Amino acid sequence: MKKKPLILVTNDDGISAPGIRALIAVMKGLGDVVVVAPDSPQSATGHSITINNTLYINKIDIDPDVDKEYSCSGTPVDCVKFAVNEILDRKPDLCVSGINHGSNSSINVIYSGTMSAAVEAGIEGIPAIGFSLMDYDWNADFEPTKPFIKRIAQQVLDHGLPEGVVLNVNFPKLSEKEINGIKICRQAKATWIERFDKRKNPQGREYYWLTGEFVNMDNGEDTDEWALENGYISMVPVQFDLTAYHAMQTLNTWKLNETN
Amino acid sequence: MKKKPLILVTNDDGISAPGIRALIAVMKGLGDVVVVAPDSPQSATGHSITINNTLYINKIDIDPDVDKEYSCSGTPVDCVKFAVNEILDRKPDLCVSGINHGSNSSINVIYSGTMSAAVEAGIEGIPAIGFSLMDYDWNADFEPTKPFIKRIAQQVLDHGLPEGVVLNVNFPKLSEKEINGIKICRQAKATWIERFDKRKNPQGREYYWLTGEFVNMDNGEDTDEWALENGYISMVPVQFDLTAYHAMQTLNTWKLNETN
Repeated sequence: MKKKPLILVTNDDGISAPGIRALIAVMKGLGDVVVVAPDSPQSATGHSITINNTLYINKIDIDPDVDKEYSCSGTPVDCVKFAVNEILDRKPDLCVSGINHGSNSSINVIYSGTMSAAVEAGIEGIPAIGFSLMDYDWNADFEPTKPFIKRIAQQVLDHGLPEGVVLNVNFPKLSEKEINGIKICRQAKATWIERFDKRKNPQGREYYWLTGEFVNMDNGEDTDEWALENGYISMVPVQFDLTAYHAMQTLNTWKLNETN
Repeated sequence: MKKKPLILVTNDDGISAPGIRALIAVMKGLGDVVVVAPDSPQSATGHSITINNTLYINKIDIDPDVDKEYSCSGTPVDCVKFAVNEILDRKPDLCVSGINHGSNSSINVIYSGTMSAAVEAGIEGIPAIGFSLMDYDWNADFEPTKPFIKRIAQQVLDHGLPEGVVLNVNFPKLSEKEINGIKICRQAKATWIERFDKRKNPQGREYYWLTGEFVNMDNGEDTDEWALENGYISMVPVQFDLTAYHAMQTLNTWKLNETN
């Protein structure tokens, strides 16, 4: 009898978020599920890890069908590291992160705790996928994403992933019937135009809220932004070898080792 | 008369760290310097930004030769965003981050607050360099790095950088004479083998410290790890388009849009 796949589930919105509960529901149909997720929201924590502070772990029991479920006081990346090194007896066959409440397309991949958890799993040699829905609402409807998530996760379990690659999957906020399909994309070139909202605290001291507007500077029809705007699920293969190989030749023409 | 370059300096060890003071000292010889750096250590915060908490900014005056100097309660990436949007009248000609107390070579680029600040500047279209010294000591000797930092920064001011590329520069812990030169490298394939140190707090509750051992799995002689081990300064061009273009063809062979 073939062993059931071992699937690690995490996220950045916290262990009680509806998004991770939806993801767990799908994964239970594909294998044995272990959950290690932050005990509080950790959005936009990027690839942050907890080295100057302590970590608290609690075994919890939200879903009776899940073998092991733990909350962690740290970041999504801490969760993956803790799961792999302290909880799991063997390397999982798959790590899924999300479903994030909100988009992680384009440059958001870099800020995203959801995607950083997937990248961490990738660094540790585990096939990994981050899932995000373009709906920031705590009560977002994750139902339409479920059949697609099941299909994508099954493909990764069947094929594995190329070495050094994890998947960034984003869903448009559409019904299952309205979705045009899954598109392999590149990361759109985009940025945030920041605005700092200045206020005064009750003691009269000035403080700021970071806020901003997402600006897509990329007209390409092969980008994740284009796919999402046109009713597709975007799937971007993401790498963590950040070397800009194309730039090495240019840098080698510089006079870096000549003193004048 | 040619306008003096405007140089933004930040780090992740905090505004009073000897590393950033050494970097400021070098930059004063190249242009007008503005400093915006965290008010406390922010190591390993990666590309974290502060969206669920408030930001406090203080104008401070450590170095009389520096025009503007601010500490910020947020992460290194927050510092860059705040500097660009709230403090500077024009886009800086260069952003430098560091000098980090400790290595940011290989996979550490992803966890590093120092490098994430440089990457954030890159996203905002500013030529950017992260500098790190392989010495975690607060009282590390940064003197040997200074002539090289000056030379590298001057080259970036002269040439600019290819679009979408920032530099990750790491120094071996050697005297100026012992350093063999600067080498353009790729990021070595490496990982951390984690260990969680379990303890009990005074109330008897278990907690953990994240700790680990860096493992280089890459025998290549074109990597940053090789360069550093052989007495060279490593310079890796780093990109923030994370798309694994080489994996797109493979994914396009998958049956993602067929329901069965």
